[in-house]
Amino acid sequence: MSVTLPGPTLGIVGGGQLGRMIGESVARLGVEVVVLDPTPDCPASPVVSDQIVGGFDDPEAIRELASRVDALTFEIELTDPDLLAEAAADHDVPVHPDPDTLRTIQDKLVQKEALVDAEIPVPEFVAIATADGLKRVVEEYGGVMLKAREGGYDGRGNVPVQDPDDAADALDEIGGAAMAEQLLDFEREIAVMGLKGTDGEIRTYPVTETIHREEILRESVAPARTDDAIVAEAESVARDVLGVLDGRGVFGIELFETRDGEVLVNEIAPRPHNSGHWTIEGARTSQFENHVRAVLGWPLGPTDLVAPSVTANVLGDVEETQSATLRNVDAVLEAAEADFHWYGKADVRPLRKMGHLTATLVDDSDAGTAGESDRDALLSRTRALRDELTFISE
Amino acid sequence: MSVTLPGPTLGIVGGGQLGRMIGESVARLGVEVVVLDPTPDCPASPVVSDQIVGGFDDPEAIRELASRVDALTFEIELTDPDLLAEAAADHDVPVHPDPDTLRTIQDKLVQKEALVDAEIPVPEFVAIATADGLKRVVEEYGGVMLKAREGGYDGRGNVPVQDPDDAADALDEIGGAAMAEQLLDFEREIAVMGLKGTDGEIRTYPVTETIHREEILRESVAPARTDDAIVAEAESVARDVLGVLDGRGVFGIELFETRDGEVLVNEIAPRPHNSGHWTIEGARTSQFENHVRAVLGWPLGPTDLVAPSVTANVLGDVEETQSATLRNVDAVLEAAEADFHWYGKADVRPLRKMGHLTATLVDDSDAGTAGESDRDALLSRTRALRDELTFISE
Repeated sequence: MSVTLPGPTLGIVGGGQLGRMIGESVARLGVEVVVLDPTPDCPASPVVSDQIVGGFDDPEAIRELASRVDALTFEIELTDPDLLAEAAADHDVPVHPDPDTLRTIQDKLVQKEALVDAEIPVPEFVAIATADGLKRVVEEYGGVMLKAREGGYDGRGNVPVQDPDDAADALDEIGGAAMAEQLLDFEREIAVMGLKGTDGEIRTYPVTETIHREEILRESVAPARTDDAIVAEAESVARDVLGVLDGRGVFGIELFETRDGEVLVNEIAPRPHNSGHWTIEGARTSQFENHVRAVLGWPLGPTDLVAPSVTANVLGDVEETQSATLRNVDAVLEAAEADFHWYGKADVRPLRKMGHLTATLVDDSDAGTAGESDRDALLSRTRALRDELTFISE
Repeated sequence: MSVTLPGPTLGIVGGGQLGRMIGESVARLGVEVVVLDPTPDCPASPVVSDQIVGGFDDPEAIRELASRVDALTFEIELTDPDLLAEAAADHDVPVHPDPDTLRTIQDKLVQKEALVDAEIPVPEFVAIATADGLKRVVEEYGGVMLKAREGGYDGRGNVPVQDPDDAADALDEIGGAAMAEQLLDFEREIAVMGLKGTDGEIRTYPVTETIHREEILRESVAPARTDDAIVAEAESVARDVLGVLDGRGVFGIELFETRDGEVLVNEIAPRPHNSGHWTIEGARTSQFENHVRAVLGWPLGPTDLVAPSVTANVLGDVEETQSATLRNVDAVLEAAEADFHWYGKADVRPLRKMGHLTATLVDDSDAGTAGESDRDALLSRTRALRDELTFISE
């Protein structure tokens, strides 16, 4: 296929920060973007051509989106795969990744079963139907992560349970179909952003280290501060995972590195992912640009590291929802190594993802040889910059 | 001043490719942008919050723009400095650079006189009133560049005259107030993007080499392939020029390097400039982001080189105006070292600037030590990629 410009129009279900960063990354390539999102003036809205205001699973809105674009994708899992497939077929536009893959991923139990079928290593897991069942599993595994099978994100829908007596409360908190995974005493969490292009082409970004607190990603360090054998194993597992998934696009593959040196799959996202935000500054082509290239069937961009990078999320540090004003941004603007990303959300809520900053090692001569101590220092500096930022007025 | 987000709203007179690249560069900083441009769906329009459709010197449109923003700037010289100053004062918003500086720069004769007053080296020049006068100057200088005093850009309004008998025709072609500059037998053309911040802070980007044909910029090479003494002199001249200009922002300073090793000022643009497009990929902070930071009174970003870079302009290769479809974009997308920028212009005209591509030296280990031969090769590869692109259907 010969690419011509002006480029195609891409429809995205979801217009949050991922849609916004997609829009920011592909304007220069002449790709027009239309997003579908229920929130008027959603984060993506100011940087894309148009927004359809409607629900992620509103049949009419999805049909309208399909009718206006040349290709469809999604930046959120909360859309209906059947509606997406149907609208795409009706309007004869491709949709990527494949809605079947979205369906598999949406149900965390089905997702894990698909991985097991493909002999991909995962933590021990089991479906949970009753509090008694959960209690027995907690006793057997010595602690579990109880997960809502559908709809969880950013820590919502994930409840660690270590005391069998907490089983009933935990299941109430989930409030729906659940599964339990063995709580691992892992060495660290890592992630691989993987990329599927045309004709089965697969690329991966350098392995990223992800640091969570309260089940929410706080910082990412790329490349991960781990040994070469783990890196090789993580890449190998990521390629196996990509082999199981259908359709083109970027996939976020979250992994555990166990204390025994094993790499197990935690979760998969069929879209750009928070653990790949560092690729905007730190890789030759960002995950956002490459997602669009892949979805459109364009040549993929190189995924090579440009410079070791640390991303720190800026989360809502407020007690309750309020109008968002972020303070003390000066220090971030003054820092030579940091780039700030504001997501354009009108309201701040406790722990809501409001923006991020990425710091890259600026001295090029270090890039090839940067050791762990450089990344330790970069992580400390990035955290310190991030921690100056606040939504709370004095 | 403490910076808070969401950021201020910036009004830009002009919504061409410069406005577009400004919009692309500052969305992530939470700066909202409104442009004023007479062309509906102007290049900037898809990437900014809103466009006011109106003339660059339409008093009502400029007043409307001023009423809706927190700060004003311009990306084109074709606006009226008095209207801009008045609207800014009426609505109590800052405007940068200073409209007085715009007024000085708009008239190339006044611009040159201001430089001479500040003892900044420029080519010999003289005001031209009649064809006879021009004829005598051509004889005296042994060839001149005849320039329209106002309104010229991209080669329009510049006519080289080497034969005294061509004087009358050349003056007719200019068709208005004119000046003549001695045609220099220069070694090369170079440029410095300069930056003025708050409290008189001045920064410069690495000296760029600019390659013109038919008075239109075709390629830029950064850093310039010239010797250290010229680089030092160019930076010194650029700092002197910035000292003459009032207000904050980015200024494009075009220079001649003569065969005698002198550096003379050719022209000044009070805005981001084509010779600084490479800074998007090749410098720590792009000229577009730094222009906005400066105009808003924010801390300036570092202007350091990230990697040696070459920008090649994509100009209309058609014989007459037609609807724009750029072909053979695949090769650019496939090139690991190249980033493409499409300006979103609906029509292509002969030699119209339609986009550009920037290639950077991707092997980081070369960045510190890249010699001229690396940049020669990078220039060749970038030109070859650019030359594959065409608006002509087979």
